[in-house]
Amino acid sequence: MRRLRLGRAFTLIEPGPVVLVTTHDGRKDNIMTISWTMVLDFTPVFAITTGEWNHSYAALRKSRECVVAIPTVDLLDKVVGIGTCSGKDTDKFARFGLTPVRGKFVRAPLIKECLANLECKVVDIVKRHDIVVLEAVAAYLDTGRKEKRTVHAVGDGTFIVDGRRIDRRKMMASKIPFGV
Amino acid sequence: MRRLRLGRAFTLIEPGPVVLVTTHDGRKDNIMTISWTMVLDFTPVFAITTGEWNHSYAALRKSRECVVAIPTVDLLDKVVGIGTCSGKDTDKFARFGLTPVRGKFVRAPLIKECLANLECKVVDIVKRHDIVVLEAVAAYLDTGRKEKRTVHAVGDGTFIVDGRRIDRRKMMASKIPFGV
Repeated sequence: MRRLRLGRAFTLIEPGPVVLVTTHDGRKDNIMTISWTMVLDFTPVFAITTGEWNHSYAALRKSRECVVAIPTVDLLDKVVGIGTCSGKDTDKFARFGLTPVRGKFVRAPLIKECLANLECKVVDIVKRHDIVVLEAVAAYLDTGRKEKRTVHAVGDGTFIVDGRRIDRRKMMASKIPFGV
Repeated sequence: MRRLRLGRAFTLIEPGPVVLVTTHDGRKDNIMTISWTMVLDFTPVFAITTGEWNHSYAALRKSRECVVAIPTVDLLDKVVGIGTCSGKDTDKFARFGLTPVRGKFVRAPLIKECLANLECKVVDIVKRHDIVVLEAVAAYLDTGRKEKRTVHAVGDGTFIVDGRRIDRRKMMASKIPFGV
């Protein structure tokens, strides 16, 4: 995994892929599947929706750290499996054959098998809406990976895979932040 | 456009498509392009990130209403065009050949050419993060439309079109809200 410029990291979240969020509670690593995410700023700051209903939430709130990993379509059954069992009674890294990799800034692990990983600090929690605001402090991209298509949860048990990419960089020039 | 059950409306936002948000300021309609959205609850409540930098924000804040419309890939150049000019000096419905349709609950217009439209009330504004929290009060789907593929902004001037859909409804059964 190569370091990716932080100025580009929001482009991993903006298209709206399902993500995996890892935490470390002082004893154990855990992973949750999150589909509810939103960019808040290019710096990059972004939000995820989570709360007490997710076992990982306690570790996220206490440690104020996590890693947001971007899986691709070949990992879909792991992503769904992770989202439908609990870290309360399951070691998800072992069960789903994923490899935790230590990052530089947070204790939560990167996921080696993912396309990209963002080491994140919790900068705020908006309790009344269960919004956790994250700032990425380091970003990594697996540039050698062939499968780069992410998946978008519809919410009804189906998932849309990335199709073709359309280039509108010329039309968008006035809106693209410096450095992208 | 047919009414869509509100219990299904979050499935329009969850995959993360670029959306168009219309407002009415008491005199004029306007449209903005928004890529930063997130579901907050199935009811459906969801968030968009916007603020003073968008001309529509004043109308959104004052009227506490909007329509969120879901465009498809055939509308991409209009979506990009809407996102790169301002309602301050442009009648965007006229300029981009879009048809405003009156809804039932809000003064902001639906967009006839879009795949889906959500009439929304502003339920909260989280000023410190420029998050506007919306609740949809009515949803509409153009069921006769052939082109159903939405587009996902990457943020660098490129857009990913929806590809194929994968069904994991069986694996997801425990997580799918009632009514979807």
